[in-house]
Amino acid sequence: MFIIGERINASRKNVAEALKARDSLFIRKEALNQRKAGAHIVDVNARLFADDEVHTLKWMVQTIQKDSDLSLSLDSVNAKALAQALSSHKGRAMLNSVTYERECYEKLIPLIREFRPRVIALCMADDGVPKTAGERFEIGSRLVEKLTAGGVAIEDIFIDPLVLPMSMDDQSGRAFLDALRRLSTAFPKVNTICGLSNISYGLPARRMVNQTFLVAALTEGLNSVILDPLDRRMMANLKTAETLLGKDEYCSAYLSAFREGELEIEG
Amino acid sequence: MFIIGERINASRKNVAEALKARDSLFIRKEALNQRKAGAHIVDVNARLFADDEVHTLKWMVQTIQKDSDLSLSLDSVNAKALAQALSSHKGRAMLNSVTYERECYEKLIPLIREFRPRVIALCMADDGVPKTAGERFEIGSRLVEKLTAGGVAIEDIFIDPLVLPMSMDDQSGRAFLDALRRLSTAFPKVNTICGLSNISYGLPARRMVNQTFLVAALTEGLNSVILDPLDRRMMANLKTAETLLGKDEYCSAYLSAFREGELEIEG
Repeated sequence: MFIIGERINASRKNVAEALKARDSLFIRKEALNQRKAGAHIVDVNARLFADDEVHTLKWMVQTIQKDSDLSLSLDSVNAKALAQALSSHKGRAMLNSVTYERECYEKLIPLIREFRPRVIALCMADDGVPKTAGERFEIGSRLVEKLTAGGVAIEDIFIDPLVLPMSMDDQSGRAFLDALRRLSTAFPKVNTICGLSNISYGLPARRMVNQTFLVAALTEGLNSVILDPLDRRMMANLKTAETLLGKDEYCSAYLSAFREGELEIEG
Repeated sequence: MFIIGERINASRKNVAEALKARDSLFIRKEALNQRKAGAHIVDVNARLFADDEVHTLKWMVQTIQKDSDLSLSLDSVNAKALAQALSSHKGRAMLNSVTYERECYEKLIPLIREFRPRVIALCMADDGVPKTAGERFEIGSRLVEKLTAGGVAIEDIFIDPLVLPMSMDDQSGRAFLDALRRLSTAFPKVNTICGLSNISYGLPARRMVNQTFLVAALTEGLNSVILDPLDRRMMANLKTAETLLGKDEYCSAYLSAFREGELEIEG
């Protein structure tokens, strides 16, 4: 399971403040805490800084990588910001995210060709947000074909079937899960991913929703995820589900997580 | 979702003591607490009382139904005990469980014909415990055919693909889930069920395993379950998963569960 930490996102108030104040200590700590909690790479998002996304995103990359080799997922559609961030990034970055929208795709494909990042490909096209599983599958399939034809290695593609809030559409979880299963069946070599917490936007007890949705998505074949690794129950659910889904020989990862106290969760 | 409360099982020490002492207050309270917590019917098991299962099972039925119309799932393979329990049972009972093992099937089918209980059919046959999803699917299919040919209405059949402990076979969760999906796809009118807590036998942090496995099983199509309804997190997972799987219009059951405080769970 490939885990991307979601916490360094300017839509969170304390992150926005830290970015504004260029508080490198706060940002570095958020990055390293997520790695310590199990994130393989960390997402950085400065979309709120529209006027200054270019400098802010670059500053984030330089700040976090100053004394660490942590790789970053660059969460932006601003080609200029991405170009600078990718140039500054040490090692291999991830691009979050390209879509099938013509403008987005054509802007980002040259950067993908130049820097060879891993790519999150979001199932959205020019004709609006896809509602059904079928539409998402269609767009996802076209993205896989177009990206591989464009020279991206299939194992570098992470398809996101698009998580939309349940509060806007009570079938959005179902549509996501069905699209996920169809995509991972049709393209077994492609990675699948999602930004988990969108599902609970507008609902109460959001963590409960996110934690439960993770298990459903893992059951349907998800093999990478963007989440808050500091949510202990979330990480415990992830480990337990991996074991139950037959990916943990002799349950040894589960038993080791138990010994480390990672499963001592109330409720 | 059809929920069967699992707590009145003689393998639990305090239940065995209550049964021995014919402590009707304890048994009735266990039954009503489970109904209050969301169980539609309650399982009763006196298998430990081998010599006296006939009287004990009948006493359980009479005791619980004395001042309640709660239906019971009779968890026994003792035809004599079942005959007496079914005769004493008011309203429609459930039989837990018939298997494809010849001796079991032939002993129980006359009772099924006479009393018309709902029937849990466990995917086991004479040639031992099935390991793979394919074997379970085979046995399950044959059980559905045989029971319907024997006059049981398809909607009264609850197929249990057989949950075996992860501690004995690290692929047992996977095999169960795959068999479950295949059976509910092949027989959309048949109910599917499982005794959830077998999965965690021999593992630490059993509740964590059971709670997570429930979400995976619901994702694969489970529509009835035997569990401990007094496990608050389990019930919260169940409600949240039902919502996420598209079975809760406008998320109204989720929102109502939140208002009732049922989702206020730590972790």
